[in-house]
Amino acid sequence: MAENGSRRIRLGMVGGGTGAFIGYVHRVASRIDGDYDLVAGALSSRPDVAMESGRNLGLADDRIYTDYAEMAKAEAARADGIEAVSIVTPNHMHFGPAKAFLEAGIHVICDKPLTATLEDARKLAAIKPARGAKFLLTHNYTGYPLVRQARELVASGALGKIRVVQAEYPQDWLTEAADADNKQASWRTDPNRSGAGGAIGDIGTHAYNLLRFVTGLKTEAVAADLTSFVPGRQLDDNVHIMLRFDGGARGMLWASQVAVGNENGLQLRVYGDKGGLEWRQDNPNQMWFSEFGKPRQLLTRGGAISGDAAASMNVRVPAGHPEGYLEAFATLYSQFADIIRGDGAAYADLLPSMADGVEGMEFIIASVESSKNEGRWTKLSEV
Amino acid sequence: MAENGSRRIRLGMVGGGTGAFIGYVHRVASRIDGDYDLVAGALSSRPDVAMESGRNLGLADDRIYTDYAEMAKAEAARADGIEAVSIVTPNHMHFGPAKAFLEAGIHVICDKPLTATLEDARKLAAIKPARGAKFLLTHNYTGYPLVRQARELVASGALGKIRVVQAEYPQDWLTEAADADNKQASWRTDPNRSGAGGAIGDIGTHAYNLLRFVTGLKTEAVAADLTSFVPGRQLDDNVHIMLRFDGGARGMLWASQVAVGNENGLQLRVYGDKGGLEWRQDNPNQMWFSEFGKPRQLLTRGGAISGDAAASMNVRVPAGHPEGYLEAFATLYSQFADIIRGDGAAYADLLPSMADGVEGMEFIIASVESSKNEGRWTKLSEV
Amino acid sequence: MAENGSRRIRLGMVGGGTGAFIGYVHRVASRIDGDYDLVAGALSSRPDVAMESGRNLGLADDRIYTDYAEMAKAEAARADGIEAVSIVTPNHMHFGPAKAFLEAGIHVICDKPLTATLEDARKLAAIKPARGAKFLLTHNYTGYPLVRQARELVASGALGKIRVVQAEYPQDWLTEAADADNKQASWRTDPNRSGAGGAIGDIGTHAYNLLRFVTGLKTEAVAADLTSFVPGRQLDDNVHIMLRFDGGARGMLWASQVAVGNENGLQLRVYGDKGGLEWRQDNPNQMWFSEFGKPRQLLTRGGAISGDAAASMNVRVPAGHPEGYLEAFATLYSQFADIIRGDGAAYADLLPSMADGVEGMEFIIASVESSKNEGRWTKLSEV
Amino acid sequence: MAENGSRRIRLGMVGGGTGAFIGYVHRVASRIDGDYDLVAGALSSRPDVAMESGRNLGLADDRIYTDYAEMAKAEAARADGIEAVSIVTPNHMHFGPAKAFLEAGIHVICDKPLTATLEDARKLAAIKPARGAKFLLTHNYTGYPLVRQARELVASGALGKIRVVQAEYPQDWLTEAADADNKQASWRTDPNRSGAGGAIGDIGTHAYNLLRFVTGLKTEAVAADLTSFVPGRQLDDNVHIMLRFDGGARGMLWASQVAVGNENGLQLRVYGDKGGLEWRQDNPNQMWFSEFGKPRQLLTRGGAISGDAAASMNVRVPAGHPEGYLEAFATLYSQFADIIRGDGAAYADLLPSMADGVEGMEFIIASVESSKNEGRWTKLSEV
Repeated sequence: MAENGSRRIRLGMVGGGTGAFIGYVHRVASRIDGDYDLVAGALSSRPDVAMESGRNLGLADDRIYTDYAEMAKAEAARADGIEAVSIVTPNHMHFGPAKAFLEAGIHVICDKPLTATLEDARKLAAIKPARGAKFLLTHNYTGYPLVRQARELVASGALGKIRVVQAEYPQDWLTEAADADNKQASWRTDPNRSGAGGAIGDIGTHAYNLLRFVTGLKTEAVAADLTSFVPGRQLDDNVHIMLRFDGGARGMLWASQVAVGNENGLQLRVYGDKGGLEWRQDNPNQMWFSEFGKPRQLLTRGGAISGDAAASMNVRVPAGHPEGYLEAFATLYSQFADIIRGDGAAYADLLPSMADGVEGMEFIIASVESSKNEGRWTKLSEV
Repeated sequence: MAENGSRRIRLGMVGGGTGAFIGYVHRVASRIDGDYDLVAGALSSRPDVAMESGRNLGLADDRIYTDYAEMAKAEAARADGIEAVSIVTPNHMHFGPAKAFLEAGIHVICDKPLTATLEDARKLAAIKPARGAKFLLTHNYTGYPLVRQARELVASGALGKIRVVQAEYPQDWLTEAADADNKQASWRTDPNRSGAGGAIGDIGTHAYNLLRFVTGLKTEAVAADLTSFVPGRQLDDNVHIMLRFDGGARGMLWASQVAVGNENGLQLRVYGDKGGLEWRQDNPNQMWFSEFGKPRQLLTRGGAISGDAAASMNVRVPAGHPEGYLEAFATLYSQFADIIRGDGAAYADLLPSMADGVEGMEFIIASVESSKNEGRWTKLSEV
Repeated sequence: MAENGSRRIRLGMVGGGTGAFIGYVHRVASRIDGDYDLVAGALSSRPDVAMESGRNLGLADDRIYTDYAEMAKAEAARADGIEAVSIVTPNHMHFGPAKAFLEAGIHVICDKPLTATLEDARKLAAIKPARGAKFLLTHNYTGYPLVRQARELVASGALGKIRVVQAEYPQDWLTEAADADNKQASWRTDPNRSGAGGAIGDIGTHAYNLLRFVTGLKTEAVAADLTSFVPGRQLDDNVHIMLRFDGGARGMLWASQVAVGNENGLQLRVYGDKGGLEWRQDNPNQMWFSEFGKPRQLLTRGGAISGDAAASMNVRVPAGHPEGYLEAFATLYSQFADIIRGDGAAYADLLPSMADGVEGMEFIIASVESSKNEGRWTKLSEV
Repeated sequence: MAENGSRRIRLGMVGGGTGAFIGYVHRVASRIDGDYDLVAGALSSRPDVAMESGRNLGLADDRIYTDYAEMAKAEAARADGIEAVSIVTPNHMHFGPAKAFLEAGIHVICDKPLTATLEDARKLAAIKPARGAKFLLTHNYTGYPLVRQARELVASGALGKIRVVQAEYPQDWLTEAADADNKQASWRTDPNRSGAGGAIGDIGTHAYNLLRFVTGLKTEAVAADLTSFVPGRQLDDNVHIMLRFDGGARGMLWASQVAVGNENGLQLRVYGDKGGLEWRQDNPNQMWFSEFGKPRQLLTRGGAISGDAAASMNVRVPAGHPEGYLEAFATLYSQFADIIRGDGAAYADLLPSMADGVEGMEFIIASVESSKNEGRWTKLSEV
């Protein structure tokens, strides 16, 4: 992470125009640690959307593109051209840009899954990037500090030899046939844009990647039952899979978009002959760790970790401040920015003010006074 | 929040040199939404620390100061001077900079509590800021989307007339007398730097601010019992307070730095004659809402909220993606940045790679094939 | 507990006629371990209710009384008279029967609180029971295995010197003025029958007894704020208390009958200079135990405990079978009894049958077959 | 349940001698509601164990048997013979007694699974019981009030058409090869006594029965992967199964005896096209119910239920008192019984006493006084 004198990296983006979800997520992620500056983009193939989206992000007009190939070529030619690019298009549009930028010698950060088809994936893997361009696939759940600690624990032998792995990712947002109205839903349920898999490609791969990342087990074979429950849906919306791993471990994977009551219930449970681990994304700051015959322990993000491991985890705030603490903090900053710009009337009452500060001091002093006086009820207006 | 074409605000910082916790938090918060650029700082009163810290943050040398008063004067005089400043010094060092920058017409973002003494607080409140400079006190817990929704719910009457408020903030980090070794602990337990209160000023005010923010109740009086449990400690490390509010509601507030097993257990519970609310910071994405006589409901961040309210909450990712999702995402970006810069060898194995992407596709295809073949065990190496 | 060849104790009951809650609870409690036979009762002062209630419980007509004094006299005179009596009347009716039976040399099991007034309590304590009659006050929460383990942990020094105790018992059933319609509510909110306290006597004493039982701390003084929120209610329905214990520990106690969303949220948290404990009644099978600087541990009922302590805890089923397991089991037995008696038509479909048993075997065999055949989908109708 | 004037049913038991777990559970279950009297038993095939066990349970010597066939014959011939019998032997010993007692016209309560082999199960089902003798298989988890409410909810259509069912039962007690030392483990891991299945027969059937009971879905086929992880173990200790139900619903079932950190983690999750349900045995008093598009609701045992359904659930104590409340209560009764019998010295300090009662009153009065005096700290010794 930056704050150590490192220069910021010049970043571009393909996809992610106004209203896109995952493009926005990538941009925020690029800003948090101060490592990147977004300076160019092919944010949409529609010129008007590309231009408006780019200007909203503060891009110079000559670095707003509508075609990724043109962008790769132009940026590679500039002295101040982008060094890296984020690809945040639908699955079937990953291959083209990834190939173009890697061949232009520009580092690629690509949303998952890698491509829409296995053929494309293998072709992409066979490309020789120019000038040593590197590649990152954003299986973002592997970035949680406790997920990395889980991996460390398994690698350290704390669980012994792994026997059983239970991974799941239930959601409910596709319970009904809302596909037509919903931009997020429409491409995800369209075989032409998503590829051969529905739920399995969208969220099953997340659960799969997570179990692979944490356990390091190599998958030997799968036995699967993929179902489409919603009438008319072409791709699976529920995935049941049994897994066999090299070395004899067994697993199950469940992914569903029709499990009513679940938002993003990604969960991983790993059991070895000495210990077990359980982690859920909906409270990513806690993880259960059990040693056979002892009480369960609740590990928290940022607790005692050895040196090297700690570095890899990028724990930004101390244990007990949940992930999210920074976002709450950022909301104050952002809404105050609107107020400074004269555009934050809606937040005027919400943001803590000087008066709140004075009253806070009155509360402290009144409490101290009351305590000194044997708990006498003390008015804040007295102090 | 930015991404709407707004210009970034030029930001300075007082305090927050290398190694400081809350200064770092303020900087991350300023970056997340892309609303600020940090361009100046008096990060330490020690010249060498100030210079090194400033350079690490990419500040130009002529905008690295060691004295806040000089900084206020110099920045106010520049055409490209800072428009806002973050004050992240210990409590007793809030008053001076806040006064200086407000009088210089520069917006102030100040960490809590406002000052170390009530006198300072009242003096500060009496200042007339130049050029309409505005003031933000970072009671950061009020920035959580569900805390804001709680406030909306109370204001909407969903809880009826409020009767009982239970606020608490247990920690355990000062259980032992570790004060001398610990920079965070040392000023917090020193009356000269923290003011009259220990736990009450450090965390009691957070709990108090939170209950005030959510309920809107005005405090009439307190009856308090402040204790120092650790031998030799001069300030309170455990706070018991009963509260009476205008209109008859009653409350309790507990803050402790010696409650073993608690990291940052900030919790608020509010009960009216129609309903109740319960929220805990350690899982800030969930909140209980109960209507009398009906089952409890678990509200999640980003669930159904009416228009204006939603805007105030700044929900960055959809329901089910916990706060923290963005940070995990950012970790991938940040560590990939180190790899790009040639300084990320430690992360090389951790970041999802092209090979991971190909294997993910193999997993999808093998699963689809297995499912088409009546669940036949299908090897990933077959597809 | 019985099952060791011990003779059953002959038991009587005062109060607890048809429809009474706590009388029923006492009777079930007396049966679970097979230590008592209920053989006499003054279940109501109304002769018809007393007779019907007694017959429903299988009492002989000559041992159904309407007057406790007469019952005490008559039973003491019988060779097969009761050896113990349960007193399950409203608070103001505890003193009379307790005195009468103790003076008749009959052991007394009395619901809490002891009496309606402190004067009565002290008078009762001053009585010299005949023939060594013993007395039990049913502060039932002290019977939970984990509560007893908590006491052992404190006594063992595992928490170090106790500093802070937080006890609470929130309910919501008296949120509205339903007093007139509700038998349970009516006497509890009537000063003539409940005594000087409302919530404090009904549930505050439970929380208080629990903290005393677990910590062994002796209370020095209290500072209290008792409130009646519901218009017209004469007794407190919300209790805020700060506590000071001998030796310097401090505590808070909150009891409420108007905390919407809480059913019986009894909770105890104890913190010493080495460790902390947290237990909630709504999941009585789990308890948090924290040692300073280590991860929280989740203790479960019936986990590893040393010899003597284990005996005192009366753990009936192994760890992991929650308390309640026995009740679910009992429901099958009881409803099958109704079927045997020809009175269980309503349950016929609910109880597991021979056919369920056969299908269970089909499921096992089909699964074994499928597994042997490389996971081939195997019909239950095939095996 | 009894307490309604019904005569108690005379009960016998086969198996369940001193030290047996499930026999003890059956006996407690038979006592809780007062529906049965245990009067005969073939508690062991070893005469000395049978006699000692029988006497400990208060059986008359002439009703203590060592052979179930003899017992069935003798009891059927007595005027006061048993009306029902509980069979609590290992799986392979269910068939003989069940047949004998049914043919003797005695009702049978049989532990699960029905038998050790499918052949035996079918033979048993084909028997024609004499005198209308009835049969109960103790799939005890179906007796939980919330499990029955779950069934009602599914039947009512509240979940819509069921799509996905996830059942699991993880344990960890067979993680190591402790089989030889452990009576419970030895027969469960022995094919001769348990039948074809290990974990699948012992706990898999529980999970399976639970899903069948709640959903009413009929199983079409299974695809299974059964594994023995512990070296030398002959039966499966981990079970992965995919299920297909008539009508198109799909399911997964996981049962494991090697999932470190899990005690008895029975869990059922059911999702339809309108709603979802989630229940866990380790907190059996709570159940999640979700309607699509609305916040999750936490149902509690004994909450609002319509008439007939409520009756079937046998809710013994009001909502908020967890199952287990009765057991804690019973512990006080049972240990007081020991004290009465002069055998309870170990509990003398544990049971709430007269002095506790007086102090409880002092606490109430001191609190009331303090509250009347503006929260003045009031000593318990003052009142």
